Amino acid sequence: MTQNSSWLDAITFDEQGLIPAIAQDVKTGTILMVAWMNAEALDETVATGRAVYWSRSRKRLWRKGEESGHVQIVHEIRLDCDGDVILLKVQQEGGIACHTGRTSCFFRRLDGTAGRATWTTVDPVLKDPKDIYK
Amino acid sequence: MTQNSSWLDAITFDEQGLIPAIAQDVKTGTILMVAWMNAEALDETVATGRAVYWSRSRKRLWRKGEESGHVQIVHEIRLDCDGDVILLKVQQEGGIACHTGRTSCFFRRLDGTAGRATWTTVDPVLKDPKDIYK
Repeated sequence: MTQNSSWLDAITFDEQGLIPAIAQDVKTGTILMVAWMNAEALDETVATGRAVYWSRSRKRLWRKGEESGHVQIVHEIRLDCDGDVILLKVQQEGGIACHTGRTSCFFRRLDGTAGRATWTTVDPVLKDPKDIYK
Repeated sequence: MTQNSSWLDAITFDEQGLIPAIAQDVKTGTILMVAWMNAEALDETVATGRAVYWSRSRKRLWRKGEESGHVQIVHEIRLDCDGDVILLKVQQEGGIACHTGRTSCFFRRLDGTAGRATWTTVDPVLKDPKDIYK
């Protein structure tokens, strides 16, 4: 942890000590993904300028890109009015944030009207996940 | 609820039956706010084309704009790869999503370096909340 972490006091972590973080492409405005951070992940993100999350499944720090190389360079960090959501404006190395090999995790769009709606995959896979995670 | 709600099966609600929803301005790409939805809120959002959330504090459906007039017209709904975050692309009536009278709830930016970081309010209040919630 950094020496002066009073900026962390403005943040409302949930019962598990986590806060959701949105990663947004700083140039295009595309929302790339949402993941979780604990205080340590956020602190390391600020210190290194690279997005670090908390993996709830693996229960450890997840330095985004550690396996894929798809690092996120952090240009700006914002906090919402309730202090319970973080927004990262990032440069996405490799142009791929999603583990499916797509730019964004939000690649499914709801089509149709109420009662007949379906999810349609609308964004292309840019790289086969098998070639990302070797 | 709509008759055919199989599209809801793709969604992973949390233990409280909720999913976080990001509202993004469809034209500018600005992230306006993050709120929560239950199945009923999402279903009504799809049916009416206006953003409906679940207010965790008031424990009831929150039809965005019901008091302020700051309705969100929904242009597109997306779901992320894990099925546990919703993205709404919206037209924000009145240009104000935040209860503080600002366009976006993400009006605080982290400035400075690790150890000496502070949150700076960088976006203006467009309308006094006293004039929004009369």
